[in-house]
Amino acid sequence: MKVREAGLREGISEVIVTTKSASGTFNAAPIGIITRANDYFVKLYSGSTTLSNVMETSRLTANVTDDAVLFVKAAFKHLDESYFSLFRGFPVLREADSWIVFQAMLAKKSSEYSVLHLMPNAVQINREELKAINRGLNAVIEAAILATRYPVVKDEGYQEQIITLMKRYADVVEKCGGPREKEAMEFLAEKFLK
Amino acid sequence: MKVREAGLREGISEVIVTTKSASGTFNAAPIGIITRANDYFVKLYSGSTTLSNVMETSRLTANVTDDAVLFVKAAFKHLDESYFSLFRGFPVLREADSWIVFQAMLAKKSSEYSVLHLMPNAVQINREELKAINRGLNAVIEAAILATRYPVVKDEGYQEQIITLMKRYADVVEKCGGPREKEAMEFLAEKFLK
Repeated sequence: MKVREAGLREGISEVIVTTKSASGTFNAAPIGIITRANDYFVKLYSGSTTLSNVMETSRLTANVTDDAVLFVKAAFKHLDESYFSLFRGFPVLREADSWIVFQAMLAKKSSEYSVLHLMPNAVQINREELKAINRGLNAVIEAAILATRYPVVKDEGYQEQIITLMKRYADVVEKCGGPREKEAMEFLAEKFLK
Repeated sequence: MKVREAGLREGISEVIVTTKSASGTFNAAPIGIITRANDYFVKLYSGSTTLSNVMETSRLTANVTDDAVLFVKAAFKHLDESYFSLFRGFPVLREADSWIVFQAMLAKKSSEYSVLHLMPNAVQINREELKAINRGLNAVIEAAILATRYPVVKDEGYQEQIITLMKRYADVVEKCGGPREKEAMEFLAEKFLK
């Protein structure tokens, strides 16, 4: 299986994970896939839709993309059906550069999170495009991670720190980003900085 | 010219710029190429080898790569001849995913920096590989930018702040990076954190 060719490398790959519940509802969320040698893992937090879907249907798709807008929408908005297409009945993202459908097996469980061992079932590469490193894209990803923490953080001082950091990332996006990075940051700013 | 296909998109693309002096010496440095619509620009600081080479030979190559090690080596080490190959006598990086040779024309000059307008002369795409977003790669780039500032910063408090931030980026690399990101961060740590 061409998992590496589809974009997953040693370390943690930030992708959009799509899943399906037993009743057939789709979900999408930005998540890191861990690659160690040729083993794939994912750590999913208790209470997340992704984890409950995976426990119900034992599968997930890792969708590789560098589209900043897709990342923030998957994090903070319900993606409607138009974003998905189906591979043997399982949801993948229509606009992904590539995707890998994994079989997921529970490897470790604690009260806070579960670790799943992933075995590739199917791989598809839709497009291979070169894109130079853009600090604006990185800044959107970091800002989105902070934004997901914001609602769960209780400490006001820490919340303020998050906002300060997010503003700094917004400046990097303004300076270095392209139109997709700017649109994504605008979306985060509307929700958290206004 | 397939400049977009070679990886340069709207915004600032972080690439390794290779240049040649009038006497034929090569140089490489990580630099941002600015794309606005279909216009390309670069801002080069006074006193830099890149600027003096460009003023002498009116050309530069933008080498697109996501190799963290190549970025930090270009920033802090003299790349020897083995790293370069030649396109019509002009240096390009052998390991670049793609490169664009630009003709450079002075557009603006101040005491601190010069802005050059870039016109593509030749484009080559060596490989197109998908790679999911890796926060470790981003962290290396940000740490390398901080590291280049460190020696020019006089304020001790600011220097301490740089070291604190660099350590935070080192943690992200440790958690998320692959082998190239870890090797690159180790190189920076040897120089700045030990």
